[in-house]
Amino acid sequence: MVKFKERSEFDMDLDFIRKLVKPAETKIVLLVIDGLGGLPRKSDNLTELEAANTPNLDSLAKKGICGLQQPIGPGITPGSGPGHLAVFGYDPIKYQVGRGVLAALGIGFDLQLGDVAARGNFCTLDNNGNVVDRRAGRISTEKNQELCELLRKIELPDVDVFIETVKEHRLLLVLRGEELSGDIIDTDPQAIGKKPLQPKSLSPDAEKTVNLVGQFLDQAHKILADHHPANMVLLRGFSKKQDWPTMEDVFGIKSATIAAYPMYRGLAKLLGMNILDTGTTVKDEFTTLEDNWGDYDFFYLHVKKSDSAGEDGDFDRKVSVIEETDREIPRLLDLNPDVIMVTGDHSTPSLMKAHSWHQVPVLLWSECCRADKVDRFGERACITGGLGTRLPAVDMMPLALANAMRLEKFGA
Amino acid sequence: MVKFKERSEFDMDLDFIRKLVKPAETKIVLLVIDGLGGLPRKSDNLTELEAANTPNLDSLAKKGICGLQQPIGPGITPGSGPGHLAVFGYDPIKYQVGRGVLAALGIGFDLQLGDVAARGNFCTLDNNGNVVDRRAGRISTEKNQELCELLRKIELPDVDVFIETVKEHRLLLVLRGEELSGDIIDTDPQAIGKKPLQPKSLSPDAEKTVNLVGQFLDQAHKILADHHPANMVLLRGFSKKQDWPTMEDVFGIKSATIAAYPMYRGLAKLLGMNILDTGTTVKDEFTTLEDNWGDYDFFYLHVKKSDSAGEDGDFDRKVSVIEETDREIPRLLDLNPDVIMVTGDHSTPSLMKAHSWHQVPVLLWSECCRADKVDRFGERACITGGLGTRLPAVDMMPLALANAMRLEKFGA
Repeated sequence: MVKFKERSEFDMDLDFIRKLVKPAETKIVLLVIDGLGGLPRKSDNLTELEAANTPNLDSLAKKGICGLQQPIGPGITPGSGPGHLAVFGYDPIKYQVGRGVLAALGIGFDLQLGDVAARGNFCTLDNNGNVVDRRAGRISTEKNQELCELLRKIELPDVDVFIETVKEHRLLLVLRGEELSGDIIDTDPQAIGKKPLQPKSLSPDAEKTVNLVGQFLDQAHKILADHHPANMVLLRGFSKKQDWPTMEDVFGIKSATIAAYPMYRGLAKLLGMNILDTGTTVKDEFTTLEDNWGDYDFFYLHVKKSDSAGEDGDFDRKVSVIEETDREIPRLLDLNPDVIMVTGDHSTPSLMKAHSWHQVPVLLWSECCRADKVDRFGERACITGGLGTRLPAVDMMPLALANAMRLEKFGA
Repeated sequence: MVKFKERSEFDMDLDFIRKLVKPAETKIVLLVIDGLGGLPRKSDNLTELEAANTPNLDSLAKKGICGLQQPIGPGITPGSGPGHLAVFGYDPIKYQVGRGVLAALGIGFDLQLGDVAARGNFCTLDNNGNVVDRRAGRISTEKNQELCELLRKIELPDVDVFIETVKEHRLLLVLRGEELSGDIIDTDPQAIGKKPLQPKSLSPDAEKTVNLVGQFLDQAHKILADHHPANMVLLRGFSKKQDWPTMEDVFGIKSATIAAYPMYRGLAKLLGMNILDTGTTVKDEFTTLEDNWGDYDFFYLHVKKSDSAGEDGDFDRKVSVIEETDREIPRLLDLNPDVIMVTGDHSTPSLMKAHSWHQVPVLLWSECCRADKVDRFGERACITGGLGTRLPAVDMMPLALANAMRLEKFGA
């Protein structure tokens, strides 16, 4: 595992901030345009954000202070979990979301404190018990649902077992009970021609859970025996839902999440944020913002489709999601927020069809933000911004709180 | 206490620097214009520093390397203590000046190593012993002096007791003796209708001191009984003068402080700096610099009134203090210093009438500083400077020492 001593220039740990928090009546809006940062296309040397027509974001950039932020560190490509945690002010190295937990969040499974989740694959074993296809020929989602229904017959002592279809060959296993642990190695051998690995504990606390997982796999093996090619299950990414400090506890804010996709609602829930019902479009999300404006101090509004377009390598579609978001900004301004922060959780350049390590444009606006000379919102324009070119993402929340007059002076 | 792993990008801790220090005949001047950073006024969008006519500072900026520094971290507003310690190269999170100690420094009390100081208020108790006015109706400073004279009759076993008037209802208590501790809770209940709190230790080491403070308060209660409204004393901010490494020990420099205000002389004294007598004006301070030029390696010259003007919300007066300082710069240049560093301990925007979290302009000049393209000294001009937009203030001293040829190469 990567061992960083720190990832924030000043290692602003949560306790330090917590002690400085003071109450205020101000409102902060954090707009996360997923995968915002990009790379320039050949034709005109413009990135998606630079190519987009964004008069409202440009106007905010002109009145605000801009820069480029780094979710984790130079050269490090963030997953959606770490990218978001950093933007929420939580050290993404210290607060690691396990892959099983993330998978549960991704399908909107209502994880409880202490639950242990794992990602599963239906797979194919040969007669010797060796894995010959780690994905069971990518069975259909419908087939997966049938098989999960069968697996739900499995009962284990003292724990509840939840089995959920994800998609195609992928499923989710959740165990709920006392004293469970996620410190278990993957049973997926990550290679064909090998037997599934036996569940094994990585810490003494995990013995009980290892035993339960072993029983689960034995029963699954029997139930699936006649369902070739999906005649076994491989598990990986065991992880436990942790008891993390909440945004309200640390930052003293009553916070609301407006996100069309379950994964982001789930991430926010890990930090105790309130989840608002919303629709599927950016416009819907801004309507939800308007409808709930009076009830919260902090709003996290998440735009997903910029990232999906980037992942698909669709430059123009990413441009148009950014423009679609820009058109809603006047509705945000009409609410008279005290602080607006716009950024992404990472870059997703269409040219790479993937998340990337590139810094992410950020703009912060408040009446007392000390505007710089940046007059439009774009990767290269932000280089000369007052927030600098490598603002640690975890430092954005303290900055937003300061601009909202929610932090005391440190020392006399 | 706050636990930070580190606060500087390069973890320049004092031991690291100490090992690199080498002797030289060079001279460094650190000019701290208190509360230097500001916010732009509406009329012309200029900050105090940008609006000021500063031909000499601009010329230094043009020949030097500029940037914006952060005393503590993004969003964190520094008190005067932490702001100065950072500029002096001491991690302001690790080296925390207690409030009692700071109060003693503020009135020029000559604290000794091991002294425990607390801030006090005269207050009003009702017949049931409940606090009805935490400030005793803000009695006059003269009345305070009379009452302090009475309190000086208090004697405690094995320790010397010092009682000093601060202003109006505020006083200072200092205990001097062996094995004292500042780990004591405030006796000020911070609310009316409640009894003063009993002194209580926060660590086992503090039992002796708690006992002494208890005796002090009992005697004070008796002495003040008939002096309504000032019939009791509340104490807070207990803290001990620590044995910190000196500037000479760490940086190998014989240093001198030129500061018109006692608080800043006191802060410098905590780091073993020599304190020079000076007058009350900026001009006086530069005269003191000239008069003592031959005797020291490092001069810290402190201009206070820029901060006071900012705190008063007086934009024009802050501009004029900055201009007044600028006019003295030629006298500094005539002395042929090797390194000049100009900055503030924090920002104090007139528009906010308070210290703020905004980064502070910094300029560093030496013959080998590698000048950037910044051609005037101002918040927005410094954004494009070679020192970057978020230089940790603690890293300024190593930079100054390097430019003064006072640091060895690290490693072979």
